[in-house]
Amino acid sequence: MQIIAESKLFAGTHQHIRHHSPATQCPMECAVFIPHGNAPDACLIFLSGLTSTWENATTKAGAQIHAARANMALIFPDTSPRGDGVPDAEQFWLGQGAGFYVDATEPPWAPHFSMESYITRDLPVLFAEAIGKPLPPLGIMGYSMGGHGALTLAMKHPAQFASLSAMSPISSVTQSAWGQQALTTYLGKNSKNHETHDATLLMASRGWHSDILIDQGLEDEFLDEHLKPHLLAEAAARANIPLTLRQHEGYDHSYYFAASFIAGHIDWHAKRLKA
Amino acid sequence: MQIIAESKLFAGTHQHIRHHSPATQCPMECAVFIPHGNAPDACLIFLSGLTSTWENATTKAGAQIHAARANMALIFPDTSPRGDGVPDAEQFWLGQGAGFYVDATEPPWAPHFSMESYITRDLPVLFAEAIGKPLPPLGIMGYSMGGHGALTLAMKHPAQFASLSAMSPISSVTQSAWGQQALTTYLGKNSKNHETHDATLLMASRGWHSDILIDQGLEDEFLDEHLKPHLLAEAAARANIPLTLRQHEGYDHSYYFAASFIAGHIDWHAKRLKA
Repeated sequence: MQIIAESKLFAGTHQHIRHHSPATQCPMECAVFIPHGNAPDACLIFLSGLTSTWENATTKAGAQIHAARANMALIFPDTSPRGDGVPDAEQFWLGQGAGFYVDATEPPWAPHFSMESYITRDLPVLFAEAIGKPLPPLGIMGYSMGGHGALTLAMKHPAQFASLSAMSPISSVTQSAWGQQALTTYLGKNSKNHETHDATLLMASRGWHSDILIDQGLEDEFLDEHLKPHLLAEAAARANIPLTLRQHEGYDHSYYFAASFIAGHIDWHAKRLKA
Repeated sequence: MQIIAESKLFAGTHQHIRHHSPATQCPMECAVFIPHGNAPDACLIFLSGLTSTWENATTKAGAQIHAARANMALIFPDTSPRGDGVPDAEQFWLGQGAGFYVDATEPPWAPHFSMESYITRDLPVLFAEAIGKPLPPLGIMGYSMGGHGALTLAMKHPAQFASLSAMSPISSVTQSAWGQQALTTYLGKNSKNHETHDATLLMASRGWHSDILIDQGLEDEFLDEHLKPHLLAEAAARANIPLTLRQHEGYDHSYYFAASFIAGHIDWHAKRLKA
C-alpha cells in the first residue's frame, strides 16, 4: 500500500492510495477519509458512477464534513481497473471507468475487471491496513452506476454490509441499455448471469436484511431510460423491505444533486452503523 | 448574459454563465450560486488561485451548503480572460489562469487582462442582472492568488465591499517571485506601479474600514516563499486594523484546506453583511 498524497481535512486525514489488488491483478487507486483520532465508529464505502475515478466524489460530494461530525471513515474506490495493460473501450459505459461492479468472465475483460471481488474482498482489508486496526461496522452507498453497485453488492454480500443507500442508482441494470451492453460484454450473452446483478431482481430473490434510502432528482436526464428507481421501490414493497425513495423536484444528475443530499446519507449510515 | 448550464443545489440554483465584459473586451465565464427564493440577504465574491477557473471553488470548496443556510449568494469568477484571441504564457503564474487581479498596462496583456476592473465594475452589474434586482451588500474573499485579489481589491475599492477575508493569500505580492514576475509582465518595470497592488503595503497606505479574517495552513508548501501572511498581520497591527490570522497545524495548500475552513468565512461575511 502506497500513500500517493495526504492532506488534512476537517481535522481528519484524506489519503490518496495506490495498492495491488489480488482481485483485479493490477494496481488500484482509491481515496480514504479517516476522521480525527483514527478511531472511526463506522466506515462507509462510496461507489462512483460512469466515467468517474475515486476523485469525483472525494472532491465534489462534500461528504467529509458530515463524516467528520459522525466520526465515520469513508472509502472512495475507483470505478474500474486502469492502466496500459488493462483493456478499454470507446463507449463511456464500457471498459475503464465503467466496471459495473461485477467480476467479468469474458475475454479480454477477465481477470482485471473483477470489481465485485475488489470491493467486497480487497478493499476492507486495505482499509483495515490503512487505519492499523480491525474494521468498524461497514456500510455501502453509491451514485448512479455506483448506486447499482451498492445495491447489488449489499444484497449479494449481506454479511459484509450493515447499511445501504443510493443516489440516482441504475436500479435495474438489465433494463438500461448501458447496463445491458456492459453485462453482455463482461459476462457473456446468457441473461441468467445478468439477472444476478440486477438490483430489482435481487430485491425479489434475496431481499435485504435492513432498510434502504434512495434519493432521486426528478430532472435527472437519465431517470426514465437508465435509472428507473420505481422498479426497485415496487420490488421492495412486494418483498416487504422498507425502502425510502425520496424524489426531489428540479434536481438533475450532477454532483450538485449529490452534494445537496449527501448529509442525509451520512446520517442514515451513522445511525445504523453506530447503533 | 448566457446561462450555459444550471443545476439545482441546496434548494437554490447554480448557474454557469458566459457574458461579455467591457473591462476585458472578451467573453468571460463565471458561476453563481443563488439561494432558494432568489432574495439573497448578502452576496460574496470568491476569487480563485493560480491555474483555477470558476469551477474549482464552485465544485470543491463546499461553500454553497453554508451560503444556503445564510441566504447568501456566491459569485465565482474566472482568474483571467481566456480564449484564442487572448495572450498566454508557458509559466503557470503568467497569462491565462493567472490574472493577478490587476489591470494590465503592458502589451500584449492590455487590454484583455483587466481583472481589477472586471471584478469591481463588471461583475456586480452581471450579478444584479442574474438575480433581476439591486445588489445586496457585497463581500469579497479569495484563496491564494485570489486572496491577494480579495485583499487588494477591497482596500483599493473600499466603497464596493463591506466585508473581507482570505485563505492562504499571497499577502505581499511584491515579495513573491510569482507575483513579482506577473506584475512586471502586466504593469511594467516601475516598482511604484507594483506597490499599489501589494496587500501588505496597501494595509499601511490605505488600511481597511472593517476587520479581516485570514486562515492559513502551516503545512502549506508555498507559505514561506509566496504567501507570508505574517507580513500582512504585522502591517495590520501597525495600522490598528483588526486582523484575525488563524494558523492551522497540519493543513496544506489544497482545496481540502479550503473546504475545512470555508464555513467560518461564510459565517464571517454573513454576520457583517447582514448586520
